[in-house]
Amino acid sequence: MTTKQTIDFYFDLTSPYSYVAAEQIEEIAAAGNRSVNYKPTLLGFVFKSTGNTAPMMNPAKGKYSAKDFARTARFHGLKINWPKKFPINATTGSRAILQVLNTQPEKAGALTRALYKAYFVDGQDITEDSTVQAVADSIGLDGAALIAGAQTDAVKEQMKNAVQESIDAGMFGAPYFVVDGEAFWGQDRMEQLRRWVVQGPF
Amino acid sequence: MTTKQTIDFYFDLTSPYSYVAAEQIEEIAAAGNRSVNYKPTLLGFVFKSTGNTAPMMNPAKGKYSAKDFARTARFHGLKINWPKKFPINATTGSRAILQVLNTQPEKAGALTRALYKAYFVDGQDITEDSTVQAVADSIGLDGAALIAGAQTDAVKEQMKNAVQESIDAGMFGAPYFVVDGEAFWGQDRMEQLRRWVVQGPF
Repeated sequence: MTTKQTIDFYFDLTSPYSYVAAEQIEEIAAAGNRSVNYKPTLLGFVFKSTGNTAPMMNPAKGKYSAKDFARTARFHGLKINWPKKFPINATTGSRAILQVLNTQPEKAGALTRALYKAYFVDGQDITEDSTVQAVADSIGLDGAALIAGAQTDAVKEQMKNAVQESIDAGMFGAPYFVVDGEAFWGQDRMEQLRRWVVQGPF
Repeated sequence: MTTKQTIDFYFDLTSPYSYVAAEQIEEIAAAGNRSVNYKPTLLGFVFKSTGNTAPMMNPAKGKYSAKDFARTARFHGLKINWPKKFPINATTGSRAILQVLNTQPEKAGALTRALYKAYFVDGQDITEDSTVQAVADSIGLDGAALIAGAQTDAVKEQMKNAVQESIDAGMFGAPYFVVDGEAFWGQDRMEQLRRWVVQGPF
């Protein structure tokens, strides 16, 4: 019996399509008897390294995308209240997720979803340590300890490595998934990802 | 009783995702009791005007996309044999579609699908008049008359206007759909388009 590989889920906390993806990935993984590796990364560095750009950088695409972000969330039954500050530098929340992966990895998904909800639904500023701490507390983590851990040099180094790993994995936009060596880019490729993990390669 | 608006379907014959879309749009339109306006355009001019670029222009995105084009076609049950020449200037085939719209508009969908199949499945060079003529003949059109009509100054002017119309409609990539004033970009937004025409705005 071969061990089924996990799904690498690369995301940036400022990516609205990754917010939708974060709400769906556990169900898809479960359908395929897989588990999820949460892989926070920072799109600013990914874009800089790959030469890709955010949809909002192009006027015509940006105008469409601003509408599509929210419509896509609604299409999938999710709320979205457009953040006052967008995009954000997601370093604070991403380091907290890395630290949870170090200490209580089974909570990484819950913290990721809670941070997305704080940012895209509840209008909170997740670039602030105090906000991330409160979000962590709200799902039963020790927020103060988590933030303290997330600010260590070791976790800062871990964040840099996580960004490089996402680039090395071929990422150029978010969300980005890799399973069994196969890459899927975009929330809109999750039904292809589902078929892959449930039925196999196609 | 209000008249239900048709679906404007903007596409370029060199766009693989538009090939998939062309195979699906009639079923979706029928599900919503709508009809389809076939709107051939030329992405080169659309990209130049909007400042957007083709996925293949970015190395990381291009590497992924080359695989995703074919996988997406297979996911939707369609064959794809990667063309030797890609991308192509689709002017010849697009003018032929415009001329069919002038003379036998009910055949525009059939010619569009036949040209996509010739290019993406049968390895034919649809930049050649002779190929477009044979494809038209194969679906019961008078290919010679069609090509003669497509080469008139009137149709050349019509092509320029069609490109401008697609840009004015907000298009920045293909396929692009507009119905009831709502825009949908990408084959992967066709399930949202379906919900829109079947259930209404969301």
